[in-house]
Amino acid sequence: FQFVCVGGSPNRMRAFAQFMQRELGLAAAGEDVADICAGSDRYAMYRAGPVLSISHGMGIPSISIMLHELIKLLHHAKCRDVTIIRIGTSGGLGIEAGSVVITDTAVDSSFQPRFEQVVLDDVVVRSTELDKDLAEELLACSRDIADFPTLIGHTMCTYDFYEGQGRLDGALCSFSSEKKLEYLRRAYDAGVRNIEMESTAFAALCGLCGLKGESCHFHLL
Amino acid sequence: FQFVCVGGSPNRMRAFAQFMQRELGLAAAGEDVADICAGSDRYAMYRAGPVLSISHGMGIPSISIMLHELIKLLHHAKCRDVTIIRIGTSGGLGIEAGSVVITDTAVDSSFQPRFEQVVLDDVVVRSTELDKDLAEELLACSRDIADFPTLIGHTMCTYDFYEGQGRLDGALCSFSSEKKLEYLRRAYDAGVRNIEMESTAFAALCGLCGLKGESCHFHLL
Repeated sequence: FQFVCVGGSPNRMRAFAQFMQRELGLAAAGEDVADICAGSDRYAMYRAGPVLSISHGMGIPSISIMLHELIKLLHHAKCRDVTIIRIGTSGGLGIEAGSVVITDTAVDSSFQPRFEQVVLDDVVVRSTELDKDLAEELLACSRDIADFPTLIGHTMCTYDFYEGQGRLDGALCSFSSEKKLEYLRRAYDAGVRNIEMESTAFAALCGLCGLKGESCHFHLL
Repeated sequence: FQFVCVGGSPNRMRAFAQFMQRELGLAAAGEDVADICAGSDRYAMYRAGPVLSISHGMGIPSISIMLHELIKLLHHAKCRDVTIIRIGTSGGLGIEAGSVVITDTAVDSSFQPRFEQVVLDDVVVRSTELDKDLAEELLACSRDIADFPTLIGHTMCTYDFYEGQGRLDGALCSFSSEKKLEYLRRAYDAGVRNIEMESTAFAALCGLCGLKGESCHFHLL
Protein backbone atom coordinates (compact mmCIF):
# COMPACT_ATOMS: atom_id res chain seq x y z
CA PHE A 1 0.00 0.00 0.00
CA GLN A 2 1.06 3.56 -0.56
CA PHE A 3 -1.65 5.27 1.43
CA VAL A 4 -3.55 4.46 4.59
CA CYS A 5 -6.57 6.56 5.48
CA VAL A 6 -8.06 6.17 8.93
CA GLY A 7 -11.19 7.58 10.58
CA GLY A 8 -13.48 6.82 13.51
CA SER A 9 -16.53 5.20 12.00
CA PRO A 10 -16.58 1.82 10.18
CA ASN A 11 -19.46 2.93 7.93
CA ARG A 12 -17.69 6.11 6.92
CA MET A 13 -14.47 4.24 6.13
CA ARG A 14 -16.36 1.75 3.97
CA ALA A 15 -17.96 4.66 2.10
CA PHE A 16 -14.51 6.20 1.70
CA ALA A 17 -13.10 2.96 0.24
CA GLN A 18 -16.00 2.81 -2.22
CA PHE A 19 -15.35 6.44 -3.15
CA MET A 20 -11.65 5.68 -3.74
CA GLN A 21 -12.55 2.67 -5.89
CA ARG A 22 -14.71 4.89 -8.08
CA GLU A 23 -12.15 7.71 -8.22
CA LEU A 24 -9.37 5.28 -9.18
CA GLY A 25 -11.58 3.49 -11.73
CA LEU A 26 -11.12 0.20 -9.93
CA ALA A 27 -14.67 -1.08 -9.67
CA ALA A 28 -18.01 -0.91 -11.36
CA ALA A 29 -20.55 1.36 -9.70
CA GLY A 30 -22.39 -0.32 -6.84
CA GLU A 31 -19.78 -3.02 -6.33
CA ASP A 32 -19.20 -3.60 -2.65
CA VAL A 33 -15.89 -3.63 -0.81
CA ALA A 34 -15.09 -6.44 1.61
CA ASP A 35 -14.10 -5.86 5.23
CA ILE A 36 -10.68 -7.51 5.51
CA CYS A 37 -11.10 -7.59 9.30
CA ALA A 38 -14.66 -8.95 9.38
CA GLY A 39 -14.81 -11.30 12.34
CA SER A 40 -12.89 -8.89 14.53
CA ASP A 41 -14.82 -6.16 16.30
CA ARG A 42 -11.78 -3.98 16.85
CA TYR A 43 -11.93 -2.15 13.52
CA ALA A 44 -12.99 -2.47 9.91
CA MET A 45 -10.44 -2.45 7.05
CA TYR A 46 -11.08 -2.00 3.33
CA ARG A 47 -8.71 -2.00 0.38
CA ALA A 48 -9.09 0.12 -2.73
CA GLY A 49 -6.02 -0.38 -4.92
CA PRO A 50 -3.06 1.33 -3.23
CA VAL A 51 -5.30 2.77 -0.51
CA LEU A 52 -6.15 1.05 2.77
CA SER A 53 -9.17 2.51 4.61
CA ILE A 54 -9.47 1.62 8.31
CA SER A 55 -11.76 2.63 11.18
CA HIS A 56 -10.31 3.26 14.63
CA GLY A 57 -13.26 3.99 16.90
CA MET A 58 -13.23 6.90 19.33
CA GLY A 59 -10.37 8.12 21.48
CA ILE A 60 -6.66 7.57 22.03
CA PRO A 61 -6.79 4.03 23.49
CA SER A 62 -8.90 2.82 20.59
CA ILE A 63 -6.77 4.36 17.80
CA SER A 64 -3.57 3.17 19.53
CA ILE A 65 -4.65 -0.48 19.31
CA MET A 66 -5.35 -0.13 15.58
CA LEU A 67 -2.07 1.74 14.89
CA HIS A 68 0.07 -0.87 16.69
CA GLU A 69 -1.54 -3.63 14.64
CA LEU A 70 -1.43 -1.66 11.37
CA ILE A 71 2.26 -0.82 11.80
CA LYS A 72 3.04 -4.50 12.38
CA LEU A 73 0.99 -5.41 9.29
CA LEU A 74 2.83 -2.86 7.10
CA HIS A 75 6.15 -4.14 8.43
CA HIS A 76 5.39 -7.79 7.64
CA ALA A 77 3.93 -6.82 4.24
CA LYS A 78 7.26 -5.02 3.56
CA CYS A 79 5.50 -1.76 2.70
CA ARG A 80 7.88 1.22 2.47
CA ASP A 81 7.25 4.98 2.39
CA VAL A 82 3.65 4.70 3.43
CA THR A 83 1.66 7.89 3.93
CA ILE A 84 -1.06 7.75 6.57
CA ILE A 85 -3.81 10.34 6.79
CA ARG A 86 -6.43 10.59 9.49
CA ILE A 87 -9.66 11.97 8.06
CA GLY A 88 -12.28 12.76 10.63
CA THR A 89 -14.67 15.26 12.07
CA SER A 90 -13.80 17.68 14.81
CA GLY A 91 -15.07 20.74 16.59
CA GLY A 92 -13.70 23.95 15.07
CA LEU A 93 -12.48 26.91 17.07
CA GLY A 94 -13.09 30.35 15.63
CA ILE A 95 -13.29 29.04 12.08
CA GLU A 96 -16.04 28.83 9.49
CA ALA A 97 -18.33 25.74 9.74
CA GLY A 98 -17.44 23.27 7.00
CA SER A 99 -13.75 24.21 7.05
CA VAL A 100 -11.08 21.56 6.87
CA VAL A 101 -8.22 21.88 9.34
CA ILE A 102 -4.91 20.28 8.37
CA THR A 103 -2.91 19.72 11.55
CA ASP A 104 0.64 21.05 11.76
CA THR A 105 1.06 19.99 15.39
CA ALA A 106 -1.22 18.07 17.72
CA VAL A 107 -1.38 19.51 21.23
CA ASP A 108 -2.77 18.25 24.54
CA SER A 109 -5.37 19.92 26.76
CA SER A 110 -2.66 22.28 28.08
CA PHE A 111 -1.83 23.28 24.46
CA GLN A 112 1.55 21.52 24.65
CA PRO A 113 2.91 19.57 21.65
CA ARG A 114 3.33 16.33 23.57
CA PHE A 115 1.75 12.97 24.16
CA GLU A 116 2.14 11.38 27.58
CA GLN A 117 2.28 7.63 27.08
CA VAL A 118 2.04 5.41 30.14
CA VAL A 119 4.51 2.53 29.69
CA LEU A 120 3.91 0.05 32.52
CA ASP A 121 3.79 2.60 35.36
CA ASP A 122 6.18 5.16 33.86
CA VAL A 123 5.07 8.22 31.94
CA VAL A 124 7.03 8.78 28.72
CA VAL A 125 6.62 12.10 26.88
CA ARG A 126 6.52 11.87 23.07
CA SER A 127 6.62 14.49 20.34
CA THR A 128 3.46 15.20 18.30
CA GLU A 129 4.79 16.98 15.22
CA LEU A 130 3.26 15.92 11.93
CA ASP A 131 4.76 16.04 8.45
CA LYS A 132 4.87 19.74 7.49
CA ASP A 133 5.59 19.09 3.78
CA LEU A 134 2.61 16.78 3.56
CA ALA A 135 0.45 19.41 5.27
CA GLU A 136 1.50 22.00 2.65
CA GLU A 137 0.89 19.51 -0.15
CA LEU A 138 -2.63 18.81 1.10
CA LEU A 139 -3.30 22.53 1.46
CA ALA A 140 -2.19 23.04 -2.16
CA CYS A 141 -4.62 20.29 -3.27
CA SER A 142 -7.48 22.05 -1.50
CA ARG A 143 -6.74 25.24 -3.48
CA ASP A 144 -7.68 23.41 -6.69
CA ILE A 145 -11.24 22.95 -5.49
CA ALA A 146 -13.68 25.86 -5.39
CA ASP A 147 -15.44 26.69 -2.10
CA PHE A 148 -13.34 24.38 0.01
CA PRO A 149 -12.19 26.44 3.01
CA THR A 150 -9.01 24.83 4.30
CA LEU A 151 -6.38 25.99 6.75
CA ILE A 152 -3.35 24.72 8.62
CA GLY A 153 -3.41 24.97 12.43
CA HIS A 154 -2.88 23.21 15.72
CA THR A 155 -5.30 20.46 16.66
CA MET A 156 -6.09 19.90 20.33
CA CYS A 157 -6.62 16.32 21.44
CA THR A 158 -8.61 15.50 24.59
CA TYR A 159 -9.43 12.33 26.52
CA ASP A 160 -13.01 13.35 27.03
CA PHE A 161 -15.73 14.69 24.75
CA TYR A 162 -17.91 16.42 27.34
CA GLU A 163 -15.96 17.73 30.34
CA GLY A 164 -12.68 17.72 28.42
CA GLN A 165 -13.94 19.85 25.53
CA GLY A 166 -15.93 22.40 27.49
CA ARG A 167 -19.37 20.99 26.64
CA LEU A 168 -22.10 22.17 29.01
CA ASP A 169 -24.59 19.41 28.07
CA GLY A 170 -22.96 16.22 29.40
CA ALA A 171 -24.35 14.20 32.31
CA LEU A 172 -21.97 16.16 34.55
CA CYS A 173 -20.73 19.70 34.21
CA SER A 174 -18.76 21.48 36.91
CA PHE A 175 -17.77 24.64 35.07
CA SER A 176 -19.60 27.77 33.97
CA SER A 177 -20.17 28.98 30.45
CA GLU A 178 -17.71 31.81 31.21
CA LYS A 179 -14.98 29.39 32.28
CA LYS A 180 -15.57 27.33 29.13
CA LEU A 181 -15.28 30.38 26.86
CA GLU A 182 -12.18 31.60 28.68
CA TYR A 183 -10.56 28.17 28.14
CA LEU A 184 -11.48 28.01 24.46
CA ARG A 185 -10.18 31.58 24.00
CA ARG A 186 -6.85 30.57 25.52
CA ALA A 187 -6.76 27.53 23.20
CA TYR A 188 -7.40 29.77 20.18
CA ASP A 189 -4.65 32.17 21.27
CA ALA A 190 -2.26 29.20 21.51
CA GLY A 191 -2.97 28.42 17.84
CA VAL A 192 -5.61 25.69 18.29
CA ARG A 193 -8.13 25.67 15.43
CA ASN A 194 -9.98 22.44 16.16
CA ILE A 195 -10.53 19.81 18.87
CA GLU A 196 -10.77 16.04 18.56
CA MET A 197 -9.76 12.89 20.44
CA GLU A 198 -6.99 11.00 18.61
CA SER A 199 -4.39 13.33 17.09
CA THR A 200 -1.64 13.35 19.76
CA ALA A 201 -1.42 9.54 19.92
CA PHE A 202 -1.63 9.35 16.11
CA ALA A 203 1.19 11.88 15.67
CA ALA A 204 3.38 10.27 18.34
CA LEU A 205 3.07 6.70 17.01
CA CYS A 206 3.49 7.73 13.35
CA GLY A 207 6.56 9.79 14.27
CA LEU A 208 8.20 7.01 16.28
CA CYS A 209 7.52 4.32 13.69
CA GLY A 210 8.58 6.35 10.63
CA LEU A 211 5.17 6.71 8.99
CA LYS A 212 4.61 9.96 7.13
CA GLY A 213 1.46 11.09 8.89
CA GLU A 214 -1.08 13.87 8.56
CA SER A 215 -4.39 14.62 10.16
CA CYS A 216 -7.23 16.46 8.37
CA HIS A 217 -10.50 17.25 10.07
CA PHE A 218 -13.76 18.49 8.75
CA HIS A 219 -15.30 20.98 11.16
CA LEU A 220 -18.94 20.06 11.67
CA LEU A 221 -21.39 22.79 12.58
CA PHE B 1 -35.24 0.00 32.50
CA GLN B 2 -33.98 -1.74 35.56
CA PHE B 3 -30.71 -3.04 34.18
CA VAL B 4 -28.18 -1.73 31.72
CA CYS B 5 -25.46 -4.08 30.50
CA VAL B 6 -22.57 -2.59 28.57
CA GLY B 7 -19.63 -4.14 26.73
CA GLY B 8 -17.12 -3.23 24.04
CA SER B 9 -18.36 -4.93 20.90
CA PRO B 10 -21.65 -4.14 19.10
CA ASN B 11 -21.98 -7.74 17.86
CA ARG B 12 -21.50 -9.16 21.32
CA MET B 13 -24.05 -6.78 22.84
CA ARG B 14 -26.61 -7.73 20.16
CA ALA B 15 -25.99 -11.40 20.97
CA PHE B 16 -26.41 -10.59 24.67
CA ALA B 17 -29.74 -8.84 24.03
CA GLN B 18 -30.95 -11.87 22.05
CA PHE B 19 -29.83 -14.13 24.90
CA MET B 20 -31.73 -11.99 27.42
CA GLN B 21 -34.85 -12.08 25.22
CA ARG B 22 -34.71 -15.89 25.20
CA GLU B 23 -33.96 -16.13 28.93
CA LEU B 24 -36.83 -13.79 29.78
CA GLY B 25 -39.21 -15.57 27.38
CA LEU B 26 -39.76 -12.34 25.44
CA ALA B 27 -39.28 -13.45 21.87
CA ALA B 28 -39.58 -16.43 19.60
CA ALA B 29 -36.29 -18.10 18.74
CA GLY B 30 -34.48 -16.47 15.86
CA GLU B 31 -36.31 -13.17 16.20
CA ASP B 32 -33.95 -10.27 15.74
CA VAL B 33 -33.47 -7.29 18.02
CA ALA B 34 -33.39 -3.78 16.58
CA ASP B 35 -30.50 -1.38 17.15
CA ILE B 36 -32.14 1.65 18.78
CA CYS B 37 -29.12 3.75 17.82
CA ALA B 38 -28.83 2.57 14.19
CA GLY B 39 -27.78 5.62 12.21
CA SER B 40 -25.24 6.64 14.82
CA ASP B 41 -21.81 5.07 14.70
CA ARG B 42 -21.02 5.87 18.33
CA TYR B 43 -22.55 2.73 19.81
CA ALA B 44 -25.26 0.15 19.35
CA MET B 45 -28.20 -0.17 21.78
CA TYR B 46 -30.67 -3.04 22.13
CA ARG B 47 -33.63 -3.50 24.43
CA ALA B 48 -34.77 -6.81 25.89
CA GLY B 49 -37.61 -6.13 28.33
CA PRO B 50 -36.16 -4.42 31.42
CA VAL B 51 -32.61 -4.83 30.11
CA LEU B 52 -30.78 -2.35 27.91
CA SER B 53 -27.68 -3.75 26.15
CA ILE B 54 -25.21 -1.17 24.81
CA SER B 55 -21.77 -1.29 23.20
CA HIS B 56 -19.13 1.24 24.19
CA GLY B 57 -16.10 0.55 21.98
CA MET B 58 -12.60 0.39 23.40
CA GLY B 59 -11.03 2.60 26.04
CA ILE B 60 -11.94 5.32 28.50
CA PRO B 61 -12.74 8.13 26.05
CA SER B 62 -15.10 5.87 24.11
CA ILE B 63 -17.02 4.52 27.13
CA SER B 64 -17.21 8.03 28.64
CA ILE B 65 -19.13 9.36 25.63
CA MET B 66 -21.65 6.52 25.87
CA LEU B 67 -22.06 6.87 29.65
CA HIS B 68 -22.70 10.63 29.48
CA GLU B 69 -25.40 10.05 26.88
CA LEU B 70 -26.88 7.01 28.65
CA ILE B 71 -27.11 8.87 31.97
CA LYS B 72 -28.92 11.75 30.26
CA LEU B 73 -31.27 9.25 28.59
CA LEU B 74 -32.08 7.51 31.90
CA HIS B 75 -32.68 10.90 33.52
CA HIS B 76 -35.12 12.06 30.84
CA ALA B 77 -36.82 8.64 30.80
CA LYS B 78 -37.29 9.07 34.59
CA CYS B 79 -35.63 5.70 35.33
CA ARG B 80 -34.84 5.20 39.02
CA ASP B 81 -32.61 2.66 40.81
CA VAL B 82 -30.96 1.45 37.67
CA THR B 83 -28.22 -1.17 37.97
CA ILE B 84 -25.48 -1.01 35.34
CA ILE B 85 -23.10 -3.88 34.75
CA ARG B 86 -20.12 -3.85 32.43
CA ILE B 87 -19.57 -7.31 30.97
CA GLY B 88 -16.39 -7.70 29.01
CA THR B 89 -13.21 -9.58 28.42
CA SER B 90 -9.94 -8.81 30.16
CA GLY B 91 -6.49 -10.17 30.75
CA GLY B 92 -6.29 -12.13 34.00
CA LEU B 93 -3.41 -11.92 36.44
CA GLY B 94 -2.43 -15.11 38.28
CA ILE B 95 -5.89 -16.61 37.85
CA GLU B 96 -7.27 -19.59 35.98
CA ALA B 97 -8.15 -18.97 32.29
CA GLY B 98 -11.91 -18.75 31.91
CA SER B 99 -12.38 -17.18 35.34
CA VAL B 100 -14.73 -14.27 35.87
CA VAL B 101 -13.42 -11.36 37.90
CA ILE B 102 -15.99 -9.19 39.67
CA THR B 103 -14.40 -5.84 40.40
CA ASP B 104 -14.47 -4.47 43.94
CA THR B 105 -12.34 -1.44 43.08
CA ALA B 106 -10.97 -0.22 39.78
CA VAL B 107 -7.36 1.00 39.99
CA ASP B 108 -5.11 2.95 37.62
CA SER B 109 -1.70 1.88 36.27
CA SER B 110 -0.11 2.84 39.60
CA PHE B 111 -2.61 0.56 41.42
CA GLN B 112 -4.39 3.57 42.96
CA PRO B 113 -8.20 3.62 43.30
CA ARG B 114 -8.63 6.84 41.37
CA PHE B 115 -9.61 8.23 38.01
CA GLU B 116 -7.93 11.41 36.84
CA GLN B 117 -10.45 13.31 34.75
CA VAL B 118 -9.23 16.29 32.76
CA VAL B 119 -11.88 19.03 33.01
CA LEU B 120 -10.89 21.81 30.61
CA ASP B 121 -7.23 22.02 31.63
CA ASP B 122 -7.63 21.00 35.27
CA VAL B 123 -7.11 17.47 36.55
CA VAL B 124 -9.85 16.30 38.91
CA VAL B 125 -9.33 13.09 40.89
CA ARG B 126 -12.40 10.85 41.25
CA SER B 127 -13.11 7.76 43.32
CA THR B 128 -13.43 4.38 41.60
CA GLU B 129 -15.20 2.23 44.18
CA LEU B 130 -17.93 0.00 42.85
CA ASP B 131 -21.00 -1.35 44.64
CA LYS B 132 -19.73 -3.97 47.11
CA ASP B 133 -23.19 -5.43 47.85
CA LEU B 134 -23.82 -5.92 44.15
CA ALA B 135 -20.43 -7.59 43.80
CA GLU B 136 -21.31 -10.05 46.58
CA GLU B 137 -24.72 -10.68 45.03
CA LEU B 138 -23.15 -11.49 41.67
CA LEU B 139 -20.59 -13.74 43.33
CA ALA B 140 -23.44 -15.61 45.08
CA CYS B 141 -25.17 -16.10 41.68
CA SER B 142 -22.00 -17.61 40.24
CA ARG B 143 -21.98 -20.20 43.06
CA ASP B 144 -25.25 -21.63 41.72
CA ILE B 145 -23.57 -22.64 38.46
CA ALA B 146 -21.19 -25.59 38.32
CA ASP B 147 -17.67 -25.07 36.94
CA PHE B 148 -17.90 -21.30 36.87
CA PRO B 149 -14.73 -20.01 38.53
CA THR B 150 -15.49 -16.52 39.84
CA LEU B 151 -13.67 -14.23 42.22
CA ILE B 152 -13.77 -10.68 43.53
CA GLY B 153 -10.64 -8.56 43.06
CA HIS B 154 -9.20 -5.27 41.90
CA THR B 155 -9.32 -4.49 38.20
CA MET B 156 -6.54 -2.40 36.67
CA CYS B 157 -7.53 0.00 33.91
CA THR B 158 -4.96 1.26 31.39
CA TYR B 159 -5.00 3.78 28.55
CA ASP B 160 -3.02 1.51 26.27
CA PHE B 161 -3.31 -2.15 25.31
CA TYR B 162 0.31 -2.79 24.27
CA GLU B 163 2.81 -0.62 26.13
CA GLY B 164 0.39 0.06 28.98
CA GLN B 165 -0.31 -3.62 29.73
CA GLY B 166 3.21 -4.98 29.41
CA ARG B 167 2.73 -6.61 26.01
CA LEU B 168 5.98 -7.36 24.21
CA ASP B 169 4.38 -7.76 20.75
CA GLY B 170 3.20 -4.25 19.90
CA ALA B 171 4.72 -2.11 17.13
CA LEU B 172 6.92 -0.54 19.85
CA CYS B 173 8.28 -2.07 23.00
CA SER B 174 10.84 -0.33 25.20
CA PHE B 175 10.90 -2.71 28.19
CA SER B 176 12.29 -6.17 28.81
CA SER B 177 10.39 -9.32 29.63
CA GLU B 178 11.86 -9.09 33.17
CA LYS B 179 10.59 -5.55 33.66
CA LYS B 180 7.15 -6.62 32.44
CA LEU B 181 6.99 -9.54 34.87
CA GLU B 182 8.22 -7.41 37.75
CA TYR B 183 5.43 -4.88 37.02
CA LEU B 184 2.72 -7.53 36.76
CA ARG B 185 3.98 -9.10 40.00
CA ARG B 186 3.68 -5.73 41.76
CA ALA B 187 0.16 -5.38 40.35
CA TYR B 188 -0.78 -8.84 41.66
CA ASP B 189 0.65 -7.99 45.09
CA ALA B 190 -1.49 -4.83 45.12
CA GLY B 191 -4.60 -7.00 44.66
CA VAL B 192 -5.04 -6.65 40.88
CA ARG B 193 -6.59 -9.78 39.33
CA ASN B 194 -7.29 -8.51 35.81
CA ILE B 195 -6.49 -5.71 33.38
CA GLU B 196 -8.77 -3.90 30.94
CA MET B 197 -9.35 -0.40 29.54
CA GLU B 198 -12.61 1.11 30.85
CA SER B 199 -13.22 0.33 34.53
CA THR B 200 -11.90 3.46 36.27
CA ALA B 201 -13.96 5.85 34.12
CA PHE B 202 -16.98 3.54 34.42
CA ALA B 203 -16.70 3.40 38.23
CA ALA B 204 -16.13 7.15 38.55
CA LEU B 205 -19.07 8.20 36.36
CA CYS B 206 -21.47 5.64 37.87
CA GLY B 207 -20.45 6.73 41.36
CA LEU B 208 -20.90 10.45 40.67
CA CYS B 209 -24.24 10.03 38.91
CA GLY B 210 -25.78 7.62 41.42
CA LEU B 211 -25.91 4.52 39.23
CA LYS B 212 -25.40 1.22 41.05
CA GLY B 213 -22.50 -0.11 39.01
CA GLU B 214 -20.50 -3.29 38.75
CA SER B 215 -17.91 -4.61 36.37
CA CYS B 216 -17.50 -8.33 35.54
CA HIS B 217 -14.81 -9.58 33.20
CA PHE B 218 -14.23 -12.91 31.62
CA HIS B 219 -10.53 -13.74 31.57
CA LEU B 220 -9.63 -14.97 28.10
CA LEU B 221 -6.74 -17.36 27.71
